Amino acid sequence: MKIALGQINTTVGDIAGNIDRMLDFANRAGKAGADLIVFPELAVTGYPPLDLLLKDSFIQANLDGLHRLKEKLPIPAIVGFVDVNHGKGKHLYNACAFIEGGVIRAVQHKTLLPTYDVFDEDRYFQPASQHAPVQFKEINIGLSICEDIWTRGDILEKLSYQVDPLQLLSEKKPQLLINISASPFGVGKEHIRFELVKEQTRRHKLPMIYVNSVGGNDQLIFDGRSFVMNERGELVCLAKAFEEDLVYVEAEQSAAAKASREVEAKIAPGKAKKERTVKLSGTLAEFSSDRTVNTLSALVLGTRDYMGKCGFKRAVIGLSGGIDSAVTAAIAVKAVGKENVMGIAMPSPFSSKHSIDDARKLAESLGIEFHIVPIEPAMKAYETMLAPLFAGREPDVTEENIQARIRGAILMAASNKMGHLVLATGNKSELAVGYCTLYGDMCGGLAVISDLPKMMVYDLARYINEEAGKPVIPVSTIDKPPSAELRPNQLDQDSLPPYVILDGILNAYVEQRRKPDEIIRLGYRPEVVQDVINRIDRNEYKRKQAAPGLKVSSRAFGMGWRMPIAQRFQEKATAPAGSPLK
Amino acid sequence: MKIALGQINTTVGDIAGNIDRMLDFANRAGKAGADLIVFPELAVTGYPPLDLLLKDSFIQANLDGLHRLKEKLPIPAIVGFVDVNHGKGKHLYNACAFIEGGVIRAVQHKTLLPTYDVFDEDRYFQPASQHAPVQFKEINIGLSICEDIWTRGDILEKLSYQVDPLQLLSEKKPQLLINISASPFGVGKEHIRFELVKEQTRRHKLPMIYVNSVGGNDQLIFDGRSFVMNERGELVCLAKAFEEDLVYVEAEQSAAAKASREVEAKIAPGKAKKERTVKLSGTLAEFSSDRTVNTLSALVLGTRDYMGKCGFKRAVIGLSGGIDSAVTAAIAVKAVGKENVMGIAMPSPFSSKHSIDDARKLAESLGIEFHIVPIEPAMKAYETMLAPLFAGREPDVTEENIQARIRGAILMAASNKMGHLVLATGNKSELAVGYCTLYGDMCGGLAVISDLPKMMVYDLARYINEEAGKPVIPVSTIDKPPSAELRPNQLDQDSLPPYVILDGILNAYVEQRRKPDEIIRLGYRPEVVQDVINRIDRNEYKRKQAAPGLKVSSRAFGMGWRMPIAQRFQEKATAPAGSPLK
Repeated sequence: MKIALGQINTTVGDIAGNIDRMLDFANRAGKAGADLIVFPELAVTGYPPLDLLLKDSFIQANLDGLHRLKEKLPIPAIVGFVDVNHGKGKHLYNACAFIEGGVIRAVQHKTLLPTYDVFDEDRYFQPASQHAPVQFKEINIGLSICEDIWTRGDILEKLSYQVDPLQLLSEKKPQLLINISASPFGVGKEHIRFELVKEQTRRHKLPMIYVNSVGGNDQLIFDGRSFVMNERGELVCLAKAFEEDLVYVEAEQSAAAKASREVEAKIAPGKAKKERTVKLSGTLAEFSSDRTVNTLSALVLGTRDYMGKCGFKRAVIGLSGGIDSAVTAAIAVKAVGKENVMGIAMPSPFSSKHSIDDARKLAESLGIEFHIVPIEPAMKAYETMLAPLFAGREPDVTEENIQARIRGAILMAASNKMGHLVLATGNKSELAVGYCTLYGDMCGGLAVISDLPKMMVYDLARYINEEAGKPVIPVSTIDKPPSAELRPNQLDQDSLPPYVILDGILNAYVEQRRKPDEIIRLGYRPEVVQDVINRIDRNEYKRKQAAPGLKVSSRAFGMGWRMPIAQRFQEKATAPAGSPLK
Repeated sequence: MKIALGQINTTVGDIAGNIDRMLDFANRAGKAGADLIVFPELAVTGYPPLDLLLKDSFIQANLDGLHRLKEKLPIPAIVGFVDVNHGKGKHLYNACAFIEGGVIRAVQHKTLLPTYDVFDEDRYFQPASQHAPVQFKEINIGLSICEDIWTRGDILEKLSYQVDPLQLLSEKKPQLLINISASPFGVGKEHIRFELVKEQTRRHKLPMIYVNSVGGNDQLIFDGRSFVMNERGELVCLAKAFEEDLVYVEAEQSAAAKASREVEAKIAPGKAKKERTVKLSGTLAEFSSDRTVNTLSALVLGTRDYMGKCGFKRAVIGLSGGIDSAVTAAIAVKAVGKENVMGIAMPSPFSSKHSIDDARKLAESLGIEFHIVPIEPAMKAYETMLAPLFAGREPDVTEENIQARIRGAILMAASNKMGHLVLATGNKSELAVGYCTLYGDMCGGLAVISDLPKMMVYDLARYINEEAGKPVIPVSTIDKPPSAELRPNQLDQDSLPPYVILDGILNAYVEQRRKPDEIIRLGYRPEVVQDVINRIDRNEYKRKQAAPGLKVSSRAFGMGWRMPIAQRFQEKATAPAGSPLK
């Protein structure tokens, strides 16, 4: 039996479009001789639909879409949708339909509903109460949805899940497992998925087809990389990362399997060459890719999809000559093409000559439209306007913020006048400690690199140049000490710890959720740890109004980070310094 | 037995402060002869602690706080805290401790974990697995936490709750029910709570003491109004709304109750006069208060607490001469005092004379500091700076947004320079349809009236004047047609449907979650309905970057409204117009 993995890029709420896409893939798969095609989790609605799920009309549109799909499908399919049960109260289920011959032959609901980080499935769905495999031709297939296979002992305990749906399924003797997922990208997460499925296939002695979503939806980027493992946990085939893909495997029931339903289906790579040659490896090699390369690909996809799905063709970026705006612009060019990106340098009297030169050089090497809008006239206007109100007060951070806000207003004006989306250029280190101006450099429709610590921004810059074989990002941009240039001779390092220190503490505190004393024991100075975590805690109000950012780490600010603002909890760094890194 | 209701205002994360507050209340209650004091849900941590719950150090600080409290309490107490079970995985519980004689005699976990609207309790907590009353002196007390009593059949069905904790408790024959809550204010919600408890007391033939939190924590405002009902569902005592309070009731076990544990404890109002005379009514009259009055009180409390808990003493508000900024300023004055509020009028060449006059009149009648900062210099500066970039393009909404952004920057500059919190003045109608400028009039630390539809803003304005017995808010501000004054002769009604129509559709679509066709059947024109809901859907990106707003309706934009941005679902208004209102 030839099974197609339909790794599609859906758009949240675009039910008609998502159905069309599935029909297109199914038609291609049918022509290639596939017996069955598998689509990702909630492929009908797009993932995550969030509070659209609270609209009756949305649920109905999803059912209508599924109906249209089932009538038009050329081959059987497995597809994610929202099921409804109008029993006691109205219950929704994150569900998987098995469609064959124009009818829905079976529906499997999702059992484990992730409700942590960016996930809120308990807000919307009820868990499955039944687990039954589906007989299709000669094979008995056990269906599950995303989280349902994340049932390693440590995960079950950590997340307090009370049941193991794979275990319940396997008791009913399936011969093949199919999991449909919408599992967002995170650095290194592909290995975790791989190891997980390897463990499950070995544990249950069953092959598994894992079909993941691909594409960006708001803050989340789905990386695809659907794959198949045989019952020995060997990789049989692997779909592309960060792109739609359609690949095939052969699932053959052995003679033994016919005799005894307990023997597993055998999985072999498909023979269809037309669509794509299936990769066969059986090793981890396919997954071994660099974190920088992966992150860059994820951000390019996330930016392209956010813009496209929001209806924007072009982007505008404030180019300071610094590394953050340079990397953001390079990503934008990869995402939507150089002809669709505009850079604006907005020098002040505090801007150094090299900054404007670096911004111009960057624009030239990227081949993008470039403008210079000096901001001094507005600075002077604010000075004049505010003089009576500020009489007798010294210049301070207020005037620095005004500069940032003038720049923000200029970018927004360009956006309003010409229809470009403003891409914010702030990184995670800045956003963490509040080294950024609300309504200033934080302006934008999408914050492209807001989940990248500064050191990672450098990694991306170097990789972008390496990949291009030339300094797309000017060497001086990479080499010079970072500066906001909001006053003469200002350097980031005057106000912040060195980024290597800051990023280390940030990672330990935000991503690893370590306590201050544990962070000190990693080798950081107690007073620096205390200062950094105080800044992180204190700047929640800025982050609450930040542009949506693309999530690439295990814990990003944004929808999965829900801290109160008006709160007074402060962790104390009390441990003595051990062997400080610095 | 004399039981004190300790209706306290906690601050999220201020564990030491919350414990001190409880000790203060317990000492006062002890002096008044109380045998027991009851504090609200999660009184140790403040509610909602959100992702602070993910920090081990926070959980530990909460346990340490509870330990300190139990050692120092002068009388027995019931108090909400976060319990931990280090069994399989680390489980947290929203819990209630019964403390007596320096020890925690019993702990009851919360069973029903609200995970809808603004609540995310499934994200953090495990449900209770046991329900057992606690024997205290002669009375057997059944403890429950907030949602646990929301077990009317229709609610259970709607929220898909599988168990009824009150039923489980009542099977174990308690004689008195005590519920500790953190139930946020919503217009009319006090009646819902009252009816609910009335039903439960009658159903279980048991009296109930209901202790609610009071105070603002970020977007949520807790209105207090703790109360006691006897076993016949009659109101026995009622604590203040929107203020801390300490009231007492007498719970007496009847002779019959001693003979048979099935007879209920009798509840009578306490005799302590020192602290506060307990109200006794047994009717709904105590709860009958006007929605405008309640909303105003809620916003005053919410503003005062947000500012105080964030460490701000003073507020600055842009005064346009319009109704929104006038009402916001009046609320700010009630919240923090006229000496702590600054108004800034920022006229442009498009501002009418009456606008500046109205702003000045308002400032005078409120008695607040007032400044005028004309914005024309900055408008001209932007015009000059942007001329080369915008060459050949006509003026449009861009220039209007620039004016709003200049004003935002001026207010933020005042905040930066002088330490005032900027209060944003946008209302819910504007925020819904995007009739507001991101980084412009949307600037601010708190959006005071962002959950008030425009018509409700008028109601508040009229009430503020009525209450003051004089036009605190200038009559011309109330009477003139609303205008953003961003171009000559501009009126809101040129761009929007009349507010009475807009607000009606908004209420139906956002709060009541009605479908477009249902809204049309309410009497609105199909094309207007379609236009309004399209605008609401399309402006999600603005709301995502809005300042936190105070929630007073059943469905506010903000933490409880989680819509995707890059999405394409659109509801169609297809019904024919019935008998249009307009």
